Amino acid sequence: MNSSAHQHDYEARRRHLRSQFERRKIAALLVTSLPNIFYLTGFRGSAGVALVGGSEGLLWVDPRYTLQANEQAAGVEVVEAKGGLLKEAARWIRRKRPGSVGYDDAALTCREFAGLEQAGGPRLRWVPAGGMVEDLRAVKDVDEADCIRKAGELTARVFEEVRREIRPGARESDLAAEIEYRMKRKGAEGAAFETIVASGGRSAWPHARPSSKLLKENDLVIIDLGAILCGYAADMTRTVYLGTPGRRVRTLYNRVREAQECAIQAAREGRLTGEVDAAARKTLERRKLDRYFTHSTGHGVGLEIHEGPRVGRGGKSRLEKGCVITVEPGVYLEGFGGVRIEDTVLVTAGEPEILTPASKDAWFTS
Amino acid sequence: MNSSAHQHDYEARRRHLRSQFERRKIAALLVTSLPNIFYLTGFRGSAGVALVGGSEGLLWVDPRYTLQANEQAAGVEVVEAKGGLLKEAARWIRRKRPGSVGYDDAALTCREFAGLEQAGGPRLRWVPAGGMVEDLRAVKDVDEADCIRKAGELTARVFEEVRREIRPGARESDLAAEIEYRMKRKGAEGAAFETIVASGGRSAWPHARPSSKLLKENDLVIIDLGAILCGYAADMTRTVYLGTPGRRVRTLYNRVREAQECAIQAAREGRLTGEVDAAARKTLERRKLDRYFTHSTGHGVGLEIHEGPRVGRGGKSRLEKGCVITVEPGVYLEGFGGVRIEDTVLVTAGEPEILTPASKDAWFTS
Repeated sequence: MNSSAHQHDYEARRRHLRSQFERRKIAALLVTSLPNIFYLTGFRGSAGVALVGGSEGLLWVDPRYTLQANEQAAGVEVVEAKGGLLKEAARWIRRKRPGSVGYDDAALTCREFAGLEQAGGPRLRWVPAGGMVEDLRAVKDVDEADCIRKAGELTARVFEEVRREIRPGARESDLAAEIEYRMKRKGAEGAAFETIVASGGRSAWPHARPSSKLLKENDLVIIDLGAILCGYAADMTRTVYLGTPGRRVRTLYNRVREAQECAIQAAREGRLTGEVDAAARKTLERRKLDRYFTHSTGHGVGLEIHEGPRVGRGGKSRLEKGCVITVEPGVYLEGFGGVRIEDTVLVTAGEPEILTPASKDAWFTS
Repeated sequence: MNSSAHQHDYEARRRHLRSQFERRKIAALLVTSLPNIFYLTGFRGSAGVALVGGSEGLLWVDPRYTLQANEQAAGVEVVEAKGGLLKEAARWIRRKRPGSVGYDDAALTCREFAGLEQAGGPRLRWVPAGGMVEDLRAVKDVDEADCIRKAGELTARVFEEVRREIRPGARESDLAAEIEYRMKRKGAEGAAFETIVASGGRSAWPHARPSSKLLKENDLVIIDLGAILCGYAADMTRTVYLGTPGRRVRTLYNRVREAQECAIQAAREGRLTGEVDAAARKTLERRKLDRYFTHSTGHGVGLEIHEGPRVGRGGKSRLEKGCVITVEPGVYLEGFGGVRIEDTVLVTAGEPEILTPASKDAWFTS
C-alpha cells in the first residue's frame, strides 16, 4: 500500500459522527480544524472547511486546492470558494436553513465565529460542539493503530541508528537534524514535532530546543523524537548517559524507568487516565522524586502529536481498546540534568502494546 | 553573536505597544499568541500568556518552562502557573481591576475566551484587539531585517547546493529531506514550512507536498523552501526544468519571471500592497496567462511564515521601509505543469532588496 494514499473508511467515520447529531441537537456539524477534516474526508491541504450534514458532506477549498481536494476527498462534494471559506460555507448553510448547526468552539477564533454568525444570518442557531470529532479520534481503529505502529517502528529504528552518534563532541542541533533527515529518508512525511536533543544542564529543561551546544563526557542527554507516517504521529523519548554512570545517575535513571513501566502496565482497557498518571507519580513518590516530575504522564497521539485523552493527574477519561497514548515520566534536577523515558502505547484487550520499540539501555560500555 | 541568543530590544517594543493603549481605550493587553509573546518578551517556549500593562509586563508559564522563561524573558515578571495559564492571568487581572483589557480576538478560540470572561469576573471589560502586535511586527527594525537576510542567504545557499541533485531519478521527498537537513546543518533552527518539491504534473498543484514520485526527464520541478534563523523565516521558490526546454516551457518561465520582476520593482515605500499584486497580474494578463495565476502575489514574512501585510488583489496596506514580503507569482497548467518564482523582499527607502539571492536560471546545459 502506498503510504501517501492510505485509504481510510471516511464514510464510516461520517456515519459515526452523524449518529450523535440527535443527542447533540444539531442537524449538521461545521468542521474547521484540519486534522478533523482529514479524518472525515481524506483531504490534506492546509486550508479548508467541511460540513457534515444529515446525509451530505461538503468541502470548501480555495482555488489552490481544487485539484488536490477532488483527488483526495472521498464521497464529499468539493466546492471551490472564491471568497473566504467560512463565509461561503455559512452562506450555503443559510440557504439550506438546517436550523441548528454545530461549530468547533475549541478551534474557531472569536473573530472567525463573529464572521460566521454574520454570514449565517439571524435565523441560524450555532451550537458549540468542539470535541465531537476529537472524541471519535481518541479511539483508533485497526487501520489507524497500524499507521501509528509503523510510525513508531520507524522512529525507533532511526533512534537505534543515530544512537552511536550520540557521543561527546556531537552538536545537539546536528543530531536533531540527522534524526529528522533519517526519518524522511525512511519514508516519514516529517517529524511530528521539533526533535529535542538536550544535554547536560539543558536536559533539566523538559522542553529544551536543540542548541549549538556540543555534547560532553558525563552528560545526560534527552532525545525526544517522533515521525509522521500516513498522517499519523509517534512519540518517543530516550535518555542516554555519556560515560560510566555514578550511583546518582544510575539511581535516577532506574527510578524513572520503573515509574514508566508501572504506568505502562496501568494503561489498560477500562482504567482511567488518572490511574496511569498516578502509577508513575506514586512510584516516584516512594523514591521522593515526585516533586521533580513537573509535567503530566502523557497524552493521546494520532493525527496530532497532542490529542485526547489527556493522561494527567485526576484524568477521568476511561481508556478503551484502541486508545493510543504516550507514557513519559521524567525527573528534572536543575543544574544537574534530567531523565525522561517515553513510549507510545496502544491500549488493547490485554497487555498494553509498546509502539516505539527501541532499547532503554542508557549507557554503553564502549 | 550567538544566533540562539539574539537580543532584540523587547522593552522598546512594549513601549511602542503601550503608546497605542489610549487610542484603543485599553489599560493593558493580554498577549496569547506565541510569536507575539516572543516579539514582546524574548520567551520562546511552546506555551505562555503575557500581559503588557501600563508599566508592568508579566509572563505566565507552566512549570516546564519556568527555568527557560527566567533565562529568556527580558524585563518581565515570570509567574509559574499551576492551573491554566489563561485562568491564572485572568485572576491576576481581576485583582488589579485595570478596567478595560485588550485581548486577541483573532487568536483566542471561542472556548478560551469564554473561560477568560468567567475567570475575569463581571467587572472586567474585554476589548477585541487582535492585530495590534501584528501591526507592529509588519514593519521590521534593522535587527529583524538582518535576521531575515541571514535566513534568506542560508536558504539561497542550500538551494544552490542541492540544485545539482535535482535531476531525473531523484525522489521528491528525498530532495525535500536533503534541503531541510542542509538548512539545519548550516545553523537554521528548522524549515519555516514543509519544503515543497513538486515535479511534472504535480507542479501544477500550487501547494503540493513532496511525494515518493521520482523526477523524470522534461519535468518542471517547483522547489519552495525557507529556513528559520534567530526565530525569523525566509521564503523562496525556484522552478527548474529537467531537459532542454521547448518553446512552451521557455515562454511560460520567462513570463512568470517577468511578472515577478515587475512586482518586485513595485514593492516600494509608500506603494499599496495591491499595486504589487497588480504589477504581477497585469504582466501575466498581457500574456493571457493571468487566469492560471490562482493565488495572491505574496505575504509578509518574519516570525511567522505568513504574516502582515497581505499582498493580494486590492490590498490596501501601505508599504513602509522595513516591510518584508514575498513576491511569488505562479502559473499552473493542469496536466502540463507549473512555474512559480518567489523571493523574500525588503522594502527600503530606495531599490527593493532581494533577501533570497539564488540564481533564477531554470535550465542547465549539462
